[in-house]
Amino acid sequence: MKIAYVVPGPMDYQEVVRRGELLKQWASPGTQVDIVRTSHGPASIESMYEEYLAIPETAKMVYQLERQGYDAAIIGCAGDPGLDAYREITSGMLVVGPGASSMHLAALLGYRFTILTVAENTVASSYELAMKAGLREKVASVLAVEIPVLELAQNRDETLQKLISIGKKAIQQDRADCLVLGCMSMGFLHVAEDMQEALSIPVINPAKTALKIAESLVSSGLTHSKKAYLLPPKLANGRVTSLDELDVNPT
Amino acid sequence: MKIAYVVPGPMDYQEVVRRGELLKQWASPGTQVDIVRTSHGPASIESMYEEYLAIPETAKMVYQLERQGYDAAIIGCAGDPGLDAYREITSGMLVVGPGASSMHLAALLGYRFTILTVAENTVASSYELAMKAGLREKVASVLAVEIPVLELAQNRDETLQKLISIGKKAIQQDRADCLVLGCMSMGFLHVAEDMQEALSIPVINPAKTALKIAESLVSSGLTHSKKAYLLPPKLANGRVTSLDELDVNPT
Amino acid sequence: MKIAYVVPGPMDYQEVVRRGELLKQWASPGTQVDIVRTSHGPASIESMYEEYLAIPETAKMVYQLERQGYDAAIIGCAGDPGLDAYREITSGMLVVGPGASSMHLAALLGYRFTILTVAENTVASSYELAMKAGLREKVASVLAVEIPVLELAQNRDETLQKLISIGKKAIQQDRADCLVLGCMSMGFLHVAEDMQEALSIPVINPAKTALKIAESLVSSGLTHSKKAYLLPPKLANGRVTSLDELDVNPT
Amino acid sequence: MKIAYVVPGPMDYQEVVRRGELLKQWASPGTQVDIVRTSHGPASIESMYEEYLAIPETAKMVYQLERQGYDAAIIGCAGDPGLDAYREITSGMLVVGPGASSMHLAALLGYRFTILTVAENTVASSYELAMKAGLREKVASVLAVEIPVLELAQNRDETLQKLISIGKKAIQQDRADCLVLGCMSMGFLHVAEDMQEALSIPVINPAKTALKIAESLVSSGLTHSKKAYLLPPKLANGRVTSLDELDVNPT
Amino acid sequence: MKIAYVVPGPMDYQEVVRRGELLKQWASPGTQVDIVRTSHGPASIESMYEEYLAIPETAKMVYQLERQGYDAAIIGCAGDPGLDAYREITSGMLVVGPGASSMHLAALLGYRFTILTVAENTVASSYELAMKAGLREKVASVLAVEIPVLELAQNRDETLQKLISIGKKAIQQDRADCLVLGCMSMGFLHVAEDMQEALSIPVINPAKTALKIAESLVSSGLTHSKKAYLLPPKLANGRVTSLDELDVNPT
Amino acid sequence: MKIAYVVPGPMDYQEVVRRGELLKQWASPGTQVDIVRTSHGPASIESMYEEYLAIPETAKMVYQLERQGYDAAIIGCAGDPGLDAYREITSGMLVVGPGASSMHLAALLGYRFTILTVAENTVASSYELAMKAGLREKVASVLAVEIPVLELAQNRDETLQKLISIGKKAIQQDRADCLVLGCMSMGFLHVAEDMQEALSIPVINPAKTALKIAESLVSSGLTHSKKAYLLPPKLANGRVTSLDELDVNPT
Repeated sequence: MKIAYVVPGPMDYQEVVRRGELLKQWASPGTQVDIVRTSHGPASIESMYEEYLAIPETAKMVYQLERQGYDAAIIGCAGDPGLDAYREITSGMLVVGPGASSMHLAALLGYRFTILTVAENTVASSYELAMKAGLREKVASVLAVEIPVLELAQNRDETLQKLISIGKKAIQQDRADCLVLGCMSMGFLHVAEDMQEALSIPVINPAKTALKIAESLVSSGLTHSKKAYLLPPKLANGRVTSLDELDVNPT
Repeated sequence: MKIAYVVPGPMDYQEVVRRGELLKQWASPGTQVDIVRTSHGPASIESMYEEYLAIPETAKMVYQLERQGYDAAIIGCAGDPGLDAYREITSGMLVVGPGASSMHLAALLGYRFTILTVAENTVASSYELAMKAGLREKVASVLAVEIPVLELAQNRDETLQKLISIGKKAIQQDRADCLVLGCMSMGFLHVAEDMQEALSIPVINPAKTALKIAESLVSSGLTHSKKAYLLPPKLANGRVTSLDELDVNPT
Repeated sequence: MKIAYVVPGPMDYQEVVRRGELLKQWASPGTQVDIVRTSHGPASIESMYEEYLAIPETAKMVYQLERQGYDAAIIGCAGDPGLDAYREITSGMLVVGPGASSMHLAALLGYRFTILTVAENTVASSYELAMKAGLREKVASVLAVEIPVLELAQNRDETLQKLISIGKKAIQQDRADCLVLGCMSMGFLHVAEDMQEALSIPVINPAKTALKIAESLVSSGLTHSKKAYLLPPKLANGRVTSLDELDVNPT
Repeated sequence: MKIAYVVPGPMDYQEVVRRGELLKQWASPGTQVDIVRTSHGPASIESMYEEYLAIPETAKMVYQLERQGYDAAIIGCAGDPGLDAYREITSGMLVVGPGASSMHLAALLGYRFTILTVAENTVASSYELAMKAGLREKVASVLAVEIPVLELAQNRDETLQKLISIGKKAIQQDRADCLVLGCMSMGFLHVAEDMQEALSIPVINPAKTALKIAESLVSSGLTHSKKAYLLPPKLANGRVTSLDELDVNPT
Repeated sequence: MKIAYVVPGPMDYQEVVRRGELLKQWASPGTQVDIVRTSHGPASIESMYEEYLAIPETAKMVYQLERQGYDAAIIGCAGDPGLDAYREITSGMLVVGPGASSMHLAALLGYRFTILTVAENTVASSYELAMKAGLREKVASVLAVEIPVLELAQNRDETLQKLISIGKKAIQQDRADCLVLGCMSMGFLHVAEDMQEALSIPVINPAKTALKIAESLVSSGLTHSKKAYLLPPKLANGRVTSLDELDVNPT
Repeated sequence: MKIAYVVPGPMDYQEVVRRGELLKQWASPGTQVDIVRTSHGPASIESMYEEYLAIPETAKMVYQLERQGYDAAIIGCAGDPGLDAYREITSGMLVVGPGASSMHLAALLGYRFTILTVAENTVASSYELAMKAGLREKVASVLAVEIPVLELAQNRDETLQKLISIGKKAIQQDRADCLVLGCMSMGFLHVAEDMQEALSIPVINPAKTALKIAESLVSSGLTHSKKAYLLPPKLANGRVTSLDELDVNPT
């Protein structure tokens, strides 16, 4: 099984390598997992504008990954930006969003989960992501951590303490019985385990979860429904023959 | 009052001029309405991929329009692609989406409306747009017309007959009492009036509606809530000083 | 365009004149707006009983206004009492409710709005009005101002300070990003602008909004759906020939 | 226990007597049930306008009934018009609506019920009544019988056959497992039993149900919540001292 | 009318007798109410495990009660454990759940009710019971009393004070206007009346309510829908001929 | 990783062996999967009564499996009977329900799924299971196959053709884009793959899915939330010391 993890932006090379190593550790025997990044886009995603900015380049990369024989692609952002588009432009390769995957797993483990998102900017869109996943009523709350994505790893201990403190608030005030980390950088920070120990409730790591869901689906012979995510009409009816041609530049 | 209508793609110049003329006819006395288009992007929008493809260029244009002193910008696509992002990156200029505007107006006129969307590809996203607008329960159905956007105007009579026939189905099978045209090209085709006469229920033209809603809001001193659509953190905290800098290209 | 604003009760003549002047100031060029009041009914509306008490006389007036050639009638109460009935008994004249109109406009500007209603008595009915509008999930909260309607204008500053203070509570405790004034007397008090400045979120004035929505709909050739609001059967099948005959007095 | 059944309109005296007799037959030992009618109002209720037209006179009667020592009043219309108002203006006497009572009983007996309403005019308001009762998701459908209320009893057999035929449609097409008669005239027509036998699912008679619910509540020492239905402020704070004074006539 | 009240567990004989006496006091003239208990099962029900543990024995008893000519059986637990199963295995005898019955009655009396359940363990299942009843949106909150069921009666005054104190919290924090006692042992403790007096809102006693609902339904000729609760297929098609045969023991 | 699959009834030994072999084939390298059955209970589960009948014995078995060192237990019925109870009585071993697991996976692959359940008896409970999973709005429909569970495998081809035919109905009439097999016997019949090929949409096999979800969760260090599923109070406070003692037999 070949799975690609797509960083939707020009992440620092060393960090890309570090994350790739973690993914390999998490993978089941028999799974090959490769990490790739796009050549330009947002430095990190903490607003809707940055979500959208990342999509066109990521789409092109996903389109290529299918042609390179991957079984599945994971979108490296917990907001799942562009997931429906990537599913439209692929024919058989599965595309997985860590956000929806994590929420569904959380819903399997308890009654109400809280999503810890990076900034106030992505609180409303996190509720909308839950609504699109059909899980709005399972969300106890969405709480913003208010640490810039690029600073999350600079002081891991401080980040962990803040996450634990907000997690306690979720449990006591919002009656959450499960937590979802709403940011891939949190996922690659090894905090879920420590939080779980401190808070005694499940804490979902979106990076690990997306990998496990991808493996589960591929090994079950499942991919996203092409009745749900149809090929764009111009591609379907042969008006254009490649993804690039959909982007028109008349000059 | 100065309102800009933004075509999110490289539309044919003559069609741009024709639409601009219609907007001027629809405008109230005292409203200046200008039409602009982006330099590249999708030829038409009939899939989620094309929606996303249109956003980055449109965002840059919206960002400039605020600096040029416009009171409001209308996004020229009934799927409202990127609306939340444009609202993040503006400070005082109102940004209006024709899709949500039309649905809210339809909800004001009856109990249940049907959205006529161009293709099967945008049926699910139309339901999601209604869900995000808080109006999912007002939607009787979303029906696909299945005429490519670029061919809608080629045979206006055939298009009209098909729209009327699907409208009848909406009324009889889905108990719709109001219709929403889910595509700007339908809006600029002067079909709403004929459909209304044939079907005896209100038919919402998203182009005219977006203009009227923009005028209503601006003349009431209202703009979208900046507490709802916060400036992207990197812009808010001065890490970058312009929209362009959010798009990073390390090479 | 001729629009009538109907005060659903025997309001003081000078106040009627004052409100009429404001409506004229708010109207677009080309709009004639007249204000009328009913001969008896509640002194103000701050309970469901008073809502219902106002309806029969208001209905007769709306019925006459259509015969006098008006394009639209606005019901002068933010609870929209009797709106469905007025829409049943009119054939082509639009009837607009300020409550639903304001909620839909608020939903267009943010994610969650709070309604400021006059008294605890109308809190539950405000939630029900939102539910009927299809917007229940957009309501952050309904908060009662607890100033009697007839005293709202007696000390404008005090009223304003109380509204601002409750607005802050809506923002902080209920995560509202938009406010709706749930009473026409608040609308004619010129407080929305001051509140907006103090709170930095949109504040919807139901009086101005109802006028703008009426103008938008009439200028777009739209009226409420007669498939949604059918003529009462006895009128439709000719059993009676006027509204008055529906009220039977056997003695 | 003393219960009053209020006909919200000037019903024919003999029919009033006939209904009163049926109510006495249905009552439990120890229950005294009296029937009263208002002096003017709609001849029958088959539109929202007629619902509202009935309320002011009915309210005055309910207000008097409490002063006459009744334990409960039943509103004789399955649309429950004005129920919230009657509950506001009473202090200890229970007021019961047959519509909501029947829906709740239906929800206790199966998964999905269909409401048989008299005319297309009251279909939307029946859905709204279910929504206000919190039972929207239990409604399989609302189907209009399309026999004028005043003609329902003229040919009982024809009416019964039509009701059975529509009931079959509800079961087969809408998966209903229970039916609610949405009109008091159907309730006093002795059709529920015959329908139940023909269709093999429970058929709720709103007249009998309202009586049984009233008896159950009174014998349990329960009345509607005065925290939910507050006295109108002007009555509560002594600004007026009787219901009549709330209706102002300045001439 | 013959009604059986089934204690779903091996309750102390004297307590069974005491409860039986109360039921007889509450019954209407003409109602014979008998109390029975199962021979083994949970000592009290304060977890989902104990709910399920009680069902098989209770089912056998309900099955016998129908054969003994009872008109209705009441399940003596406010969690309504196994209600759908008992309804499957009966053909004409009504089976009533005190939990759903109480919630529907509460919904008839106000806008929002709070359920007072015994322990934190049954909070989530109480929300689910409301959801199954179609009443999730009417629930203001579910609050746990945290007194073991078997100790509720040991110090009635202390229990009452705790219930009143939690009721106040429901009113003030959760805007409840009605309370539902979520445990039969509370119902047989005569606390509803005292709570009602202390809190000035309706307090629903599930024991009395279940009896009144059973009487209302039986006297109206109503039973649960056999289209909703079908006979188990093996019984329906004659594969087995009694309930006992459905429990297979191959050894 | 050690996973137990629990057949909740006295299944034929050869069939147990056959299913165990399939589970071993589906398991990832490193997973040990054992199959066990209860000593008595229903021959198959196709009614709510049979669901409940299976729970007490299954609970005892689950309780023992934790003591035998298993990491996870899968409940071998797609109705997930007793899942909340098994989660209450375990402390660290994960318990997985195939029904909820399959629905969440289906929701990850498309917009709307249809559940194919065995009999009309389990249609309503399938909707309720989806509601409890928070996924009611993702369900396009629940359709009954109406082949007795014990006959599903007797004529595999006929079963397959019926499933494909009902699947087509789900796609065309209910707009399903994904199917969920609502019965474990269908899961062990190898039909999902053939259906998927015939229908071109994903078909979820609950048996394989439950195994994959269990592996994913265990390998991620996740188990169900003990804040959501608390230990029964009598066990938690030491009033009893084993599961058996909760079942009281006073004789």
